[in-house]
Amino acid sequence: MDSCRPSICSFLLILFLLALVQTAFCRTRHYKWQVNYLFWSPDCVESVLVAINGGFPGPTIRAEAGDTIVVELENKLPTEGVVIHWHGIRQRGTPWADGTASVTQCAINPDETYVYKFLADKPGTYFYHGHYGMQRSAGLYGLLIVDVAKGEKEPFSYDGEFDIILSDWWHKNIYEQMTGLYSKPFRWIGEPQSLLIAGRGQYNCSLVSAEAGGINANCNKTNQQCAPFVLSVESGKTYRLRIASATALSSLNFIIEGHKLLLVEAGGNYIEPLEVENVDIYSGQTYSFLVKADQDPSKNYWVAVNVRGRRPNTPPGLAIFNYIPTRPTSRPSTAPPASPAWNDFAYSKAFANKIVARDGFGPRVPLKSDRAIVLLNTQNYIDGYIKWAINNVSLVLPATPYMASLKYKLSNAFDHRAAPETYSPNSYDIMRPPSNPNAATGNSIYSLDFNATVDLVLQNANILMPNSSDIHPWHLHGHDFWVLAYGNGAFNPSEDFRKFNLRNPALQNTVVLFPYGWTAIRFVADNAGAWAFHCHIEPHLHMGMGVVFAEGIEKLGKFPISGLGCGETKRWLP
Amino acid sequence: MDSCRPSICSFLLILFLLALVQTAFCRTRHYKWQVNYLFWSPDCVESVLVAINGGFPGPTIRAEAGDTIVVELENKLPTEGVVIHWHGIRQRGTPWADGTASVTQCAINPDETYVYKFLADKPGTYFYHGHYGMQRSAGLYGLLIVDVAKGEKEPFSYDGEFDIILSDWWHKNIYEQMTGLYSKPFRWIGEPQSLLIAGRGQYNCSLVSAEAGGINANCNKTNQQCAPFVLSVESGKTYRLRIASATALSSLNFIIEGHKLLLVEAGGNYIEPLEVENVDIYSGQTYSFLVKADQDPSKNYWVAVNVRGRRPNTPPGLAIFNYIPTRPTSRPSTAPPASPAWNDFAYSKAFANKIVARDGFGPRVPLKSDRAIVLLNTQNYIDGYIKWAINNVSLVLPATPYMASLKYKLSNAFDHRAAPETYSPNSYDIMRPPSNPNAATGNSIYSLDFNATVDLVLQNANILMPNSSDIHPWHLHGHDFWVLAYGNGAFNPSEDFRKFNLRNPALQNTVVLFPYGWTAIRFVADNAGAWAFHCHIEPHLHMGMGVVFAEGIEKLGKFPISGLGCGETKRWLP
Repeated sequence: MDSCRPSICSFLLILFLLALVQTAFCRTRHYKWQVNYLFWSPDCVESVLVAINGGFPGPTIRAEAGDTIVVELENKLPTEGVVIHWHGIRQRGTPWADGTASVTQCAINPDETYVYKFLADKPGTYFYHGHYGMQRSAGLYGLLIVDVAKGEKEPFSYDGEFDIILSDWWHKNIYEQMTGLYSKPFRWIGEPQSLLIAGRGQYNCSLVSAEAGGINANCNKTNQQCAPFVLSVESGKTYRLRIASATALSSLNFIIEGHKLLLVEAGGNYIEPLEVENVDIYSGQTYSFLVKADQDPSKNYWVAVNVRGRRPNTPPGLAIFNYIPTRPTSRPSTAPPASPAWNDFAYSKAFANKIVARDGFGPRVPLKSDRAIVLLNTQNYIDGYIKWAINNVSLVLPATPYMASLKYKLSNAFDHRAAPETYSPNSYDIMRPPSNPNAATGNSIYSLDFNATVDLVLQNANILMPNSSDIHPWHLHGHDFWVLAYGNGAFNPSEDFRKFNLRNPALQNTVVLFPYGWTAIRFVADNAGAWAFHCHIEPHLHMGMGVVFAEGIEKLGKFPISGLGCGETKRWLP
Repeated sequence: MDSCRPSICSFLLILFLLALVQTAFCRTRHYKWQVNYLFWSPDCVESVLVAINGGFPGPTIRAEAGDTIVVELENKLPTEGVVIHWHGIRQRGTPWADGTASVTQCAINPDETYVYKFLADKPGTYFYHGHYGMQRSAGLYGLLIVDVAKGEKEPFSYDGEFDIILSDWWHKNIYEQMTGLYSKPFRWIGEPQSLLIAGRGQYNCSLVSAEAGGINANCNKTNQQCAPFVLSVESGKTYRLRIASATALSSLNFIIEGHKLLLVEAGGNYIEPLEVENVDIYSGQTYSFLVKADQDPSKNYWVAVNVRGRRPNTPPGLAIFNYIPTRPTSRPSTAPPASPAWNDFAYSKAFANKIVARDGFGPRVPLKSDRAIVLLNTQNYIDGYIKWAINNVSLVLPATPYMASLKYKLSNAFDHRAAPETYSPNSYDIMRPPSNPNAATGNSIYSLDFNATVDLVLQNANILMPNSSDIHPWHLHGHDFWVLAYGNGAFNPSEDFRKFNLRNPALQNTVVLFPYGWTAIRFVADNAGAWAFHCHIEPHLHMGMGVVFAEGIEKLGKFPISGLGCGETKRWLP
């Protein structure tokens, strides 16, 4: 062997030092998970959950920015496929790790393992959840927290932290829920029986009063499956609370009795600090806020979540804000704090508009876009079934993942005609039920030029029933987007561009579309792959409320074969 | 083009005539099925079923011997795979159509279609059912009737026919059932809530008495989902009844009030006609019998099924034997007829021993075998879970179908060491709980020489609980077998061969193993493929009670690729 020449030696030395730095500061966080059915009593009523490693919620992943997260996911369900989506992680360069069945991979078959490997590239509050059928509703979710890289600092400080996943819970299992959604006559899933804070709720447990009548016999202060979650704090200290909403349906409002909340982060991006009494959080959203333990430390306080945006039929979810050394299980003597009225949309909109980017953090919004797509959200009939449609097309996911179909040119896997770019804004009256309620199913997609700046205008409308319009929190995979504006009524393309906030729009991955309103967002199509964009209300997505974008497919490398084998990808088999 | 020469012309002419004959006498029976969840009230209580084409039980397939049956099965379940096994069809030359997940094919993914194409080569009473997880228990079953070929005659005659599938039904769904079986502590599924005749039962409907107290409000004589099945007969005529038991657990006894039954066919083979008062039928078995409408025609009679072999906790399943023109819904005034006591095993054994081949029909049993395998059935603990084991190994099905692993030499797909040929007959006390209750999981198989004659001796034993031994009906895929003998206690290899019936043993595909007994069968391994042999009690199979045979793999042709794509078969993917 030749000895290396000085220039090569220097180069190798630099490489070696870089590797050392990588070793010193960036780690691989390795997890081995099994998904299985599990008896559990999330609200003191036993159900069968889709769970990870025998517990609920799923284990919290904790990493530092720059770390690589590896999750070996083994499916131990007897007959169901499974995938897990890492909500808010952009998967730059690893689109096959996005965990979206029919889009980025085949569902993992029973007894198979898929290895999710991706970079935790940005500090923030994220979560993960099932993205196949309605398995998220069945309990398949958990937190994913990315701290700042070692040596880096957050632009705020705190003494302690609590990480809380919020969810809603039904006693009717997901098979029955899905069957109802696909039945004639249609059967809606209804409102949840319970709201869960950190996976714990109390159905008919009468936490608040001491009444005994009709009380669920399984309620038990020491039942660690459903006893209220306790946040034990020391008087005078400041805590960071991270909350993530994995609800199937419910828009929530989070409140801590007697304490103000200082919002500092939303969806993995810093926001301009905002002091509030309570936080609106829609399914798919996350927040960090600071709370100071500055109240009378001789008693405990309620932490509560309430349903907003739909006429609620679910009692509040409750947890305990406990001042040490008060007994953690000691119930506050007060009634749980009230959230704003469920239908106070003015409050919700004012709140949403106050969420803006923290000055000096994050990329600036491009001032112009290359393309604008208007996405009208309607409720329709298809063959007598009730569906949701976008520009009159209700998404039916194909058997073959889009990304594989595109990369391997499997031309029979989906409809290659362009998905509809708009609806008829001049003729569609969003304030009334559709004049023609019929829509069509489809599976075509939007092809985006790589690096194009794209505007999306989500347009809400009246549902099939008069005088009703629903909330839809929309989530984009593979990217953050800037929230440019929320508006009322029909978006006016000749006027409403002026309302866009191009100064300090918040970067987000999930944004709310208010009833009878529109929401405009902007993103850069700079992440090669196929990406879902959909309403994060799980039964709405199941009813077709989503679209798919593709960009930079020609840049994609080799896929993990364990994510193939379904649909048209079988073509190579012997 | 050359004109054809005389010899070639004759040959082509013969081919053409053969094709004409085929066209004239043998048809292709083509079915298009979708599997979906369905709200249904099989016993007047609503459940979600796994159903075919929006009905329950599945459609009856009817063909003539020599016909080809083609079923295009599309899986419309949102997240579950599916397969269908054609129980009793030997699948000679079409092992990939056997429909056994992990053995002959990958489960069909959601939104995929698999085409089952096979020959109905032999007249008889068959059925089909799900063979993945516990989907049979969820309602995925129906009848498959093969009449004699046109121009052929049965060796008996009748004026009319009724075809009836029997099953048992739980209100607890299969996800909960499966979770219980895989839990610590173990939760048994318990006894069924209802027995179904032709898919109809009546939970808490008080068919028999007129009491109103506590009666299920959904019971309704005109509810075609759960109104009792009616067999309308004309006085003096003779009817063929075909019954098939798709029960998940229950051993049944079928009886018609006041009428004698003449058994003529069992499991697709003619048997020596046998007049009985009632019929024991185990899960996986089918029978034909003739019944003459020879009773007082001015009233109706009960048809009943009762649980035998387990302490029953389920009311009888009931149907109406209706003499035209008596009103079909008119309830008999009598109490439903009693079956023999549940634990009268002497009766059961005497009945089983009377089932022998009809003289002059079917192949003769080979007088010698090339190989004998003793299969000890035990209940065990594995890592604290309760399992069933065969020769101390509890079957855990692999992610890759055995048949593909064998044909394509996928060496990592399962354990290629030989499965255990025997247990320790001298040291194992079958009358007591296992002295060492621990067993192991495994997935190794028995490789059989092609065309070898193989004896299997099923040996029962005491379960984990003292003084208990269960019934196990064992079903062989891909073959019929001769039932050589039933014995009590431990099989004695030096003595008990003499008890084998080599004169007129019945050919069957499912045979019962009595508590504390043994059952000996013989078959010829002349059907290339990989074949399951297992207890037909679905939760028992789910707990590991099965083995797999492979024979003639080198003779297998090309597999349908739609049955691949799972596990190690992904190796060809890009």
